[in-house]
Amino acid sequence: MLVDVALTPLEIEKKEIADKAVVVIDVLRATTTMIVGLENGCKAFIPVATVEEAKKLVAEPENSDFLLGGERRALPLEGFHLGNSPRDYIPEKVRDKVVVMTTTNGTNALIAAQKAAKVFIGAFLNISAVGEALKETKRDILIACAGEKGLFCLEDTLCAGALVKKLMEADKEVSLSDAALMAKILYTHFEDDLYEILSSCEWGRYLIGLGLEEDIHICAQVDVAQVTPIFGGGKVSFVP
Amino acid sequence: MLVDVALTPLEIEKKEIADKAVVVIDVLRATTTMIVGLENGCKAFIPVATVEEAKKLVAEPENSDFLLGGERRALPLEGFHLGNSPRDYIPEKVRDKVVVMTTTNGTNALIAAQKAAKVFIGAFLNISAVGEALKETKRDILIACAGEKGLFCLEDTLCAGALVKKLMEADKEVSLSDAALMAKILYTHFEDDLYEILSSCEWGRYLIGLGLEEDIHICAQVDVAQVTPIFGGGKVSFVP
Repeated sequence: MLVDVALTPLEIEKKEIADKAVVVIDVLRATTTMIVGLENGCKAFIPVATVEEAKKLVAEPENSDFLLGGERRALPLEGFHLGNSPRDYIPEKVRDKVVVMTTTNGTNALIAAQKAAKVFIGAFLNISAVGEALKETKRDILIACAGEKGLFCLEDTLCAGALVKKLMEADKEVSLSDAALMAKILYTHFEDDLYEILSSCEWGRYLIGLGLEEDIHICAQVDVAQVTPIFGGGKVSFVP
Repeated sequence: MLVDVALTPLEIEKKEIADKAVVVIDVLRATTTMIVGLENGCKAFIPVATVEEAKKLVAEPENSDFLLGGERRALPLEGFHLGNSPRDYIPEKVRDKVVVMTTTNGTNALIAAQKAAKVFIGAFLNISAVGEALKETKRDILIACAGEKGLFCLEDTLCAGALVKKLMEADKEVSLSDAALMAKILYTHFEDDLYEILSSCEWGRYLIGLGLEEDIHICAQVDVAQVTPIFGGGKVSFVP
């Protein structure tokens, strides 16, 4: 089994993924938030690239009970019901709802990944569960980081590294790409204090500047969710 | 002083570099080869993006004594005088010559970097010299990795990490981007056996498959060159 890591959505696009199992990671915060929302009863997320597209989709008569969720630069969007904080996605707001979601990085990574054989949603919250789901596909794996505005970011690569380590523990025959080896070394360096590194990396510092340290605490939790959301038919949900 | 790392030519293009000092790194093998060639008396390298462009430039009457150098996928190019191995660039061949150079990754990184305030050429061979040159500019620094076909590669990021470590040893006040921190951690992990990692990373294995392990030994040497080539006016040379 080959394990590779794409560091940005453009790297996802440049790789051959049609036969691969892909997991999309946007630790701070889109994929963490999707996992929390789905665990809290949200029916599905529909990722879209732009605010305009999101609004247009929700304006269609048959979608009148859909909610709008997302952010730009971690700030709420005008006319949207929900932001991109996992704390927004409580059962009272999202149970049985479909959320049309647009974020700066995570939704672009999902859209880039959608031509893969299987697409899962990962974060520290569900690292073991997503590791199991990937193994069961018996496919080569691409861990796809959302990155930050098309550039490398530490937190997603760190989470990719955690997943590489899981996959190696389960299968001694796994073969790592350069990027997968780098991610594993990065994770091994920081694994004993994830909150510390998530709050001191570039995007973490930005979120803390906005008063969002509680979100980082949530995103730094490992294996608190035993679920693996799937992205298929344009929707992120628990339904294959 | 801020130290950042671009992992691919596209990341170089996405960053603001007009006021920065940039060092371009393509360890296996373009920047290593340029350093060796210049030390062996080559007057200058002119990096160009395509084989056609290289041939056209050399075909101009006033350039009749220029040499053609470069590769695609590490293989020699038809009609070219020199490949991309540092062992090609011996004094007997390159002394007082201008080499028009086109390679898969290194020349693209140089072209992407050329709008920076200062552009240097780095590799393990001259890591301390290029560290000194960067410090003297008193500018923020971008270490620009050539990568592999627009994707992350281990060897250039490793060399970037060696340079980050040098800069941190010299200046305790240096501030690291996410990518610079990652590169430093990667280098610290592998610094005791550079040949081992350079020969086992993706591109290193490919070169070894072509029988080029001797080139990797050359590229893994640290600080054997006390020189810092400069890229300016379309030429790589020792002349500012």
